[in-house]
Amino acid sequence: MNVVESIEEVRKHLDGAGSVGLIPTMGYLHEGHLSLLSRSRENDVTVMSIFVNPLQFGSTQDLETYPRDLDRDLAMATDAGVDVVFAPTPEEMFPRGYATNVDVGRIAEISEGARRPGHFNGVATVVAKLFNIVRPDRAYFGKKDAQQIAVIDQMAKDLDLAVEIVACPTLRESDGLAMSSRNVHLDPQERQAAAVLSKALFAGRDAVEAGERSGSAVAGIVGGIVKHEALARLDYVEVVDPVSFEQLDSIAGQATIVIAAFVGSTRLIDNVDV
Amino acid sequence: MNVVESIEEVRKHLDGAGSVGLIPTMGYLHEGHLSLLSRSRENDVTVMSIFVNPLQFGSTQDLETYPRDLDRDLAMATDAGVDVVFAPTPEEMFPRGYATNVDVGRIAEISEGARRPGHFNGVATVVAKLFNIVRPDRAYFGKKDAQQIAVIDQMAKDLDLAVEIVACPTLRESDGLAMSSRNVHLDPQERQAAAVLSKALFAGRDAVEAGERSGSAVAGIVGGIVKHEALARLDYVEVVDPVSFEQLDSIAGQATIVIAAFVGSTRLIDNVDV
Repeated sequence: MNVVESIEEVRKHLDGAGSVGLIPTMGYLHEGHLSLLSRSRENDVTVMSIFVNPLQFGSTQDLETYPRDLDRDLAMATDAGVDVVFAPTPEEMFPRGYATNVDVGRIAEISEGARRPGHFNGVATVVAKLFNIVRPDRAYFGKKDAQQIAVIDQMAKDLDLAVEIVACPTLRESDGLAMSSRNVHLDPQERQAAAVLSKALFAGRDAVEAGERSGSAVAGIVGGIVKHEALARLDYVEVVDPVSFEQLDSIAGQATIVIAAFVGSTRLIDNVDV
Repeated sequence: MNVVESIEEVRKHLDGAGSVGLIPTMGYLHEGHLSLLSRSRENDVTVMSIFVNPLQFGSTQDLETYPRDLDRDLAMATDAGVDVVFAPTPEEMFPRGYATNVDVGRIAEISEGARRPGHFNGVATVVAKLFNIVRPDRAYFGKKDAQQIAVIDQMAKDLDLAVEIVACPTLRESDGLAMSSRNVHLDPQERQAAAVLSKALFAGRDAVEAGERSGSAVAGIVGGIVKHEALARLDYVEVVDPVSFEQLDSIAGQATIVIAAFVGSTRLIDNVDV
């Protein structure tokens, strides 16, 4: 496995490489990331980027406490058969004088975007850069961050980036908790309590499958379950269109239930399609 | 010569084409455009795009009255040896649901950008799209639009687009008027009067060459000459850094004098390096 830090080097490694799969990550890898890797075996070469993107963090504190362990990540990536790890420094990605922001409009500003101003445009910007650096045929993202995928879809389509965005299922722990690098922040009690997010989402899905068609009624069911968990504090629950992320008053076709909640001081998100 | 309207077709034409030169234009071609073409012969294939980009116009009226003559443009492009003309419809470039804007920050907001809010981000957005569609090795722009080149440089560098931006000299009529598609709007009297822009810029350059180091003094000389032309109305004249387009109080190294003026109802811009 090659580990490269510079844009020039990664381009050199990929020159004439055949089909390329890209897995953009912020490191601190878990099984969810590895499941993306196994999907990327359909390409001749798989590149994994590991970069904690400062543009997508609202607060310096959240950026600084984001978990990092590059040595462990590289060992895991080697075992998993990644061909190239691209692990640039912040200065390589955002050198002095850097000024550009990719703004994807309304989809970046609603739902999760309304709670994290600038977050999704920061994601879109760094992913546009990664797409231009790696020029992948396909890029793989986990559905745990469903709105992120919708934002990247919008950006790539609008900017005519010839890359297929592959959305991969969320991997869950045995109690249903969606795998996330941030789960490491949970203490044992909080870790137990955190299962309430997926439990609540699944109950919401059950209600829809049983015939409930009101978005606010489904949100009420999900939120009600979270409120019974003393260690959890609901941020929001919404029933949204899975492409536009606009809230749905009534569920006719496809819908996604999205949730964010604090468990202790850790903010977690999750979602299910219904 | 191939004339293609769809993104898919232009990609098909360029698959395996060797080195590609791109000349982005809004059509209504003149000798300035043709001079870019002759520079692009260093590539295996030259693509010219002809697209009046709605994103970069502040008013619907300016967009609607922008001169167009595709048949004449295609005849000129054929004669000049263009390989592929990409002439998309607005719907091909900006389909329903399009939402993304590339914001290049301060350089888009000062000097000419301060007078045309949104203009340079509109330019940056459409050029980012064209770069992703055509994936050129080199792209050619005329220095008449000097700040546009600086904006595109910033965007391409920030977004890691692997394209060389080639700035080509402004072509001028025999009386010094910078060639521009908008010159067609000038009536014979205005056409004569329009030469005052370049005359004033050249006088400013002469002053710098004679030792004047004050930015505002040079701007005063240039502006004073324009004010003597009854048919012209100065919008602004500034002495700026040729990379950042920040105004210079004193001229130490390289500088660019930039000017915008109305001649009749037609707004013209020009610049000289000093």
